[in-house]
Amino acid sequence: EIYEPFNVIPCPAGNTGTQMAGWFNKEINSIEDLQGLKMRIPGLGGEVMQRAGATQFTVAAGDIFTALQTGVIDAAEFIGPYNDVSLGLNKAARYYYYPGWHEAGPMLECTVNKDAWNSLPADLQEIVASVCQAINVDIMAEYTWGNAVALEQLKKDPNVEIRQLPDDVLRLLKQLSREAINELSARDAAAAKVQASYEAFQKISIPNQRISEHAYMNAREL
Amino acid sequence: EIYEPFNVIPCPAGNTGTQMAGWFNKEINSIEDLQGLKMRIPGLGGEVMQRAGATQFTVAAGDIFTALQTGVIDAAEFIGPYNDVSLGLNKAARYYYYPGWHEAGPMLECTVNKDAWNSLPADLQEIVASVCQAINVDIMAEYTWGNAVALEQLKKDPNVEIRQLPDDVLRLLKQLSREAINELSARDAAAAKVQASYEAFQKISIPNQRISEHAYMNAREL
Repeated sequence: EIYEPFNVIPCPAGNTGTQMAGWFNKEINSIEDLQGLKMRIPGLGGEVMQRAGATQFTVAAGDIFTALQTGVIDAAEFIGPYNDVSLGLNKAARYYYYPGWHEAGPMLECTVNKDAWNSLPADLQEIVASVCQAINVDIMAEYTWGNAVALEQLKKDPNVEIRQLPDDVLRLLKQLSREAINELSARDAAAAKVQASYEAFQKISIPNQRISEHAYMNAREL
Repeated sequence: EIYEPFNVIPCPAGNTGTQMAGWFNKEINSIEDLQGLKMRIPGLGGEVMQRAGATQFTVAAGDIFTALQTGVIDAAEFIGPYNDVSLGLNKAARYYYYPGWHEAGPMLECTVNKDAWNSLPADLQEIVASVCQAINVDIMAEYTWGNAVALEQLKKDPNVEIRQLPDDVLRLLKQLSREAINELSARDAAAAKVQASYEAFQKISIPNQRISEHAYMNAREL
C-alpha cells in the first residue's frame, strides 16, 4: 500500500542486526554532553539528536573519516563494527558507544519495478521472492560473523574504548524518539499507518521476547 | 562431515526461537525444589535435570497432557506458547517457567538423501537449498507471531502463572550443562568436534551480541 505510488514491489532481503550508537571524540557521561555536539547522523535519528541539543551534520559515508579526524564533527554513526572498521573510523575517533538506539535492526530491501514483476511468469516470481528470503538469511549471517570478528579486533586496539551510553541519555533519546515519530505521524498519513502497525506488533511481541531471547541472554550472564 | 555416515545433506530450514523451561505443577523456588521432581524432558536437557536431582520421564508429545493432569509427572517441557497451548498444557499445569535454558533456539533441518541430491541438476539443487533458507525465515516469523499471540492468551488465564526460574537454579543448570556436554565430548569424537565449533563461535559472537541485541533490549526496558 505504501509502495503502491512508486510502482514497486518490496521484498525484505537482509538485515544488518542491531547497529552501534556511533564513534565519538567527546565522552558522553550525561545529557549535558549532548549539547552542541556536532554529529553525523542522518534521518529520524538525526532529528532526535537535534531535539536532544546536538547539531546534525550531513556527511556522505566516504567523507566521515576525514570529517571526524579533522574535527569538523565530534561524532558520527555509520553501521556496526564490520562496516565501520572498513571505513577506518576506529582511526578517527576514540569512543565507540552502544547500543544503536536509533537502528535496532535495519531491514534491507530488494524493490522490483511492478511492471517488470508482472511480466514474469508465476514460477519466476516465486524464485525472486524465495531468493530474497534466502539472501535475508545470508546477509544476517554475514553481519553476525563480520561484526563479531571486527569487534574482537577493536577490543585489542589501545586507541579505542567501547562504552555503553548512560541510562539517562538512553531514556531521553527514547522519549524524544517517540515525540519525533508522533509528530511525523501527525503530518503524514502513511507514517501514521506504519507507526500503528509497528506499535500493534510491538505490543504483542515484546512481552514474548522479554521471556524468551532476552531472558535467555540474561541467564547466560549469570 | 558429521552427516556423511548417514548419506544425507543437511539444510537448516526453520527455528522455533528460544523455548520455555516448561510447565510445572510444583513451584521452583530453590535448587532443593528440583530434588525428586518428576519431569518430562528428553535429550541432554533431561540428563542435566537428572544431575540436578530430578527424575527424567520419557513421555510422547501426545501423552504429556494426561501425564501432567493425572500427576504421573510434576512437570514437562515441550516447545513454547504457540505449540504448548495447542496441546492444552495450560489446562494441565499451573506454573509456566522461563527461559528455555536447554533450548535457546533449536534449528529445524531438511535432510536430503545424498544420492537423490546428486541426481539433481545444479539449478534444482540451488532451488532446494534456497527454498530451505526461505522456509527458515517463514518458520521463524510464524513462531515469533504464534508464540506472542499464545502468550497474550496465557497471561489472561487465571489458572496460569508465568514465572522466571530463580538465578541460583539457572546457575546450577548452566554448570551441570557444561559438565554433561564435556563428558559427552570425552566419549564421542563427533560431539567433541561440534562442541569445539560451537564454543569457538560463542567466544567471538557473544561479546558482540552483548553490545548489540542484548544492550538494545536492556535499553528498551529503561
